[in-house]
Amino acid sequence: VRNVLFLRKYVLLLFGCSSLVLVFIMLQNTEKELCDNQHIVTKNAALSSDKLAELKQKWLNELKKSPSLNGPDEPPRSDALPSVSSLECLINDQQTVQCLKAAGTDGQVYMPFDFIQNYFEVYGKMKHYDGYDRFEFQQSYAKVIYNPKVPYSYTGVFMTFDSYNVEARDRVKCISGITGVPLSTQWHIQGYYYGIQIAQFGMSHYSKELVQRPPTKQVYENAEDSIQGQWKPSNKDCIVDIAKDTETQSNVIKFSTPVSIPLGSGAALILGNTIEHILSFDLKMITNGSLSVVLETNDKLKQYTIHYITSNIVIDFDHKSNIYYGLGASRHWRHIARDLLTDLKKGIGLTDTRQAKKVRINILKVARLTVRGSGFIDNITLSTSEHLSQFHDASQWIYLNQDEETGGWKNEVERRLEGYKPIPAGWISAMGQGQGMSVLSRAYHVFQNPKYIVALSQAMLPFTKFPHEGGVRAVFMDKYTWYEEYPTEPASFVLNGFMYSLIGLYDFKALLEDNYELVTRLYDDGMTSLKAMLPLYDGGSRTFYDLRHFMVQMPPNIARWDYHTTHISQLVLLYSVTKDPVFKKYIDSWTGYLNGKVAKHN
Amino acid sequence: VRNVLFLRKYVLLLFGCSSLVLVFIMLQNTEKELCDNQHIVTKNAALSSDKLAELKQKWLNELKKSPSLNGPDEPPRSDALPSVSSLECLINDQQTVQCLKAAGTDGQVYMPFDFIQNYFEVYGKMKHYDGYDRFEFQQSYAKVIYNPKVPYSYTGVFMTFDSYNVEARDRVKCISGITGVPLSTQWHIQGYYYGIQIAQFGMSHYSKELVQRPPTKQVYENAEDSIQGQWKPSNKDCIVDIAKDTETQSNVIKFSTPVSIPLGSGAALILGNTIEHILSFDLKMITNGSLSVVLETNDKLKQYTIHYITSNIVIDFDHKSNIYYGLGASRHWRHIARDLLTDLKKGIGLTDTRQAKKVRINILKVARLTVRGSGFIDNITLSTSEHLSQFHDASQWIYLNQDEETGGWKNEVERRLEGYKPIPAGWISAMGQGQGMSVLSRAYHVFQNPKYIVALSQAMLPFTKFPHEGGVRAVFMDKYTWYEEYPTEPASFVLNGFMYSLIGLYDFKALLEDNYELVTRLYDDGMTSLKAMLPLYDGGSRTFYDLRHFMVQMPPNIARWDYHTTHISQLVLLYSVTKDPVFKKYIDSWTGYLNGKVAKHN
Repeated sequence: VRNVLFLRKYVLLLFGCSSLVLVFIMLQNTEKELCDNQHIVTKNAALSSDKLAELKQKWLNELKKSPSLNGPDEPPRSDALPSVSSLECLINDQQTVQCLKAAGTDGQVYMPFDFIQNYFEVYGKMKHYDGYDRFEFQQSYAKVIYNPKVPYSYTGVFMTFDSYNVEARDRVKCISGITGVPLSTQWHIQGYYYGIQIAQFGMSHYSKELVQRPPTKQVYENAEDSIQGQWKPSNKDCIVDIAKDTETQSNVIKFSTPVSIPLGSGAALILGNTIEHILSFDLKMITNGSLSVVLETNDKLKQYTIHYITSNIVIDFDHKSNIYYGLGASRHWRHIARDLLTDLKKGIGLTDTRQAKKVRINILKVARLTVRGSGFIDNITLSTSEHLSQFHDASQWIYLNQDEETGGWKNEVERRLEGYKPIPAGWISAMGQGQGMSVLSRAYHVFQNPKYIVALSQAMLPFTKFPHEGGVRAVFMDKYTWYEEYPTEPASFVLNGFMYSLIGLYDFKALLEDNYELVTRLYDDGMTSLKAMLPLYDGGSRTFYDLRHFMVQMPPNIARWDYHTTHISQLVLLYSVTKDPVFKKYIDSWTGYLNGKVAKHN
Repeated sequence: VRNVLFLRKYVLLLFGCSSLVLVFIMLQNTEKELCDNQHIVTKNAALSSDKLAELKQKWLNELKKSPSLNGPDEPPRSDALPSVSSLECLINDQQTVQCLKAAGTDGQVYMPFDFIQNYFEVYGKMKHYDGYDRFEFQQSYAKVIYNPKVPYSYTGVFMTFDSYNVEARDRVKCISGITGVPLSTQWHIQGYYYGIQIAQFGMSHYSKELVQRPPTKQVYENAEDSIQGQWKPSNKDCIVDIAKDTETQSNVIKFSTPVSIPLGSGAALILGNTIEHILSFDLKMITNGSLSVVLETNDKLKQYTIHYITSNIVIDFDHKSNIYYGLGASRHWRHIARDLLTDLKKGIGLTDTRQAKKVRINILKVARLTVRGSGFIDNITLSTSEHLSQFHDASQWIYLNQDEETGGWKNEVERRLEGYKPIPAGWISAMGQGQGMSVLSRAYHVFQNPKYIVALSQAMLPFTKFPHEGGVRAVFMDKYTWYEEYPTEPASFVLNGFMYSLIGLYDFKALLEDNYELVTRLYDDGMTSLKAMLPLYDGGSRTFYDLRHFMVQMPPNIARWDYHTTHISQLVLLYSVTKDPVFKKYIDSWTGYLNGKVAKHN
């Protein structure tokens, strides 16, 4: 066995520092990457059905304990059927709605929920309990607030990102086989790398590593005596052998097949795993070749094959049963970890639009793996998660794709914001810088490589420059320093992006224990502005996403409920490390808005 | 006859310049003077019941013409009674509400309006039409928006003030017999003169003079051959004679009774008027004395007597049938106009609190008038209105009570605003200055006395000074000049008061035809700020009253609906004279809020 890249001891260490997060049955999302209809939980590939059942039971128990959430002990007594008559209702002199009126002189008027839902944009759902139904009304759809038991730390969970499933988002084209990180289709149909998404992908896996139970693992081949796989070459030209790798001083599998044989043929290793879906292995190719995985699914018991090929294609699907991912042309040892369910779904769901098709499919069995071409392979494993491996891929992408000159993660797509002229491709986002810094701080913490500190230092450069200089800095009314998620001119003052940038600065500042004046100053200036300007985002019943209304005279851009909860979670994070009562004030009143509490009128 | 003070020709001239205003069945109110439950129309003392009936018919006709307000032509067909069952509804996991569920598998859920009304703070009322009922739902209670047919002018109606009834407000103690203007109890139990209220009293009468039909009048005594009253002295010491007044070169009534006879006795003039309730006369006292008016009312057919006495009392009531008003100790000719119904109601409703008791009473007959003491009286008249006389009293008060040193109308009560330290008595309000200027501009227009121009010039002084210098000026973020309704430190940026101040500046600027640089500059600076800062008052579904939330970090101070409509009416006014599309934009979106239209979320 080669020294595995991610040592268990790190994981234990991370557990020690982790802050715990309240997770509810919900997928919380930030940034435009998510479309609105994605607020249902998607199957978390890293959780077994047993674990899900266990979690569900736990939540149910918690629900039962909470008095406010308690259903009545017995069905409400069945009164005589109420007597009502139809009643016309005129709404604001404009439309009519059929209502009901209870019998009697001062009979109550009842309005249909369909109308209420549309008119007030509230939510309601009939819930079925043992023996009775209850209608559950909600002011808002999103109530997951970050609720750490210990103050936030750059070594711990990032906000509620442990509940994120970035790869499942329909604006994620797929996880690249070359880089191991997501490709976005949010603002461009062809996939492109979007730094913020990659950072969030990395931090969600980092956070999951901290809060989830250790994965279960099946090692199928490590070329040592302990575990040796049963290889079945498809013909005599396919040779599989154990060899000593001089680079890693470890026994590895050496394989060699003609490259000309059909994709999917070669030397096969039977896996037959019905539980774990994350495939990982170490690979070093000598020639071109491929690695194909056959999956049995619940889709009419159909088999699909995912081919990982030494090419630069991103993803393809033959619209029958073959899905293709490029692994690039690397001739060096690489650790590769693939979430087979994600790869399967992204393949089947592939479209020509910016939005992937929703796919409902499950893997019943990871049947076998076949190698083609010549190379070395080792440590072939199926597990329930490989979070640190995925975090490493994200960190690496972030490290390698920082622009040397500007220190920024450039976004190579044009960005259009209503009310502003388009921002040409190549812009830098303060949110991207902040999220990148949060990843790099954690990467340094786990991998202890000083290169991450250098990258962190460079990442601050755009904070010192204005958009016309390629930076992200803005000043509100010549007074308050701000860091712009979108470097518009005039500024747009997007609140959540600004707070993410402050959290990134905080992470680096904490990592350096306040020994670097620039990061401390950038953070302090930003916090001063935040505290002063929070009221400008308070609409009295909702929050504003930005200050566009003031900057370019539009109606206020109301934050949808998941941005609203992001605002609150970010304030919770900042409050946990500052204890500044300003934050507490807004946490309380903005949380009230989720339940329909509104500011007083005079 | 003496030359009457207010010549009919002015009235005709005013009619020529007037802009017409859409009046709805509502009493619109501004400023804190009004308590919330005063949104019902109170009997307008200046309108006869015939006129009211006529107006009502006109409105009904208009209502019928408007398709959106049309009731259905026939009652909705009577379907079979809907079948429903009771259903428990859980609200935001916090409370339960009994709802109804229609029969059938996907039966609609109906929520009770009592809950909806409380939860969303909306309005609804069952209306009874011929043969059927309809429930009428409203997002807001106030929908009267200023809607001038011609651009606003300082010579015309002031906004919707023609529908104001300042004297009826329960925070008005009474109309002083000494000054003829209201005494406020808004911030102090003892009545005090509140410049803004007096200005609004003046402008409501000015505006009514323009839009209402000319009053009907009965002259009971003018000491000329044409009309001579039948005087009944209560004993032989009471003498009534015709005399030539040397000052006015007119025949007048000279009366003389012992001052020692009981109040209410003396020389009586039978009036017996069942229609007109505004009593006016010219009076010059030689000794102390009184003038008593006997009223027959619908209050169990009871008689009340109002005594106007040469003293400095404000108002008193013996809690039986006698009401007292002081006329002061003047020994000069004065024109006095009293709204007998207002005087009666304020007397009976007199309390020790800041809020007058609501009184429902009508005058059936103005029976007689009795003079006591010695003096001269002339032109004893009952009419349906005396608006210009009341406007004159207000103008005079405003003219006489301007502080010489500061040019301000000082408010001699402490003012407390939540979040600020109290403003000590003696403060000046930009709104007061603006409303005063609007009155003085009209006073100059009607009375053509240059003294009003001098007062107008002085009224601008506080606009040039900051609160610590006794002024009303503020600057938002070192950039935007503002004029403060309440000179708080830090500033509070009350929107409606600021716009009233701009309208006052506009009036003077228009009167001077832009020939005075200071007023033009003050107005222009303010308009620049207003246009830039309007977005800061836009909550997306309501408007903010001020910027307290930003200045002293509180929840936003949401404007109640009548301030919201005031905001819109003020913008309509400013749009009518500037045609600036910024105003149109906010007029449209803020009007939408009245009907539940809200800003988009992302």
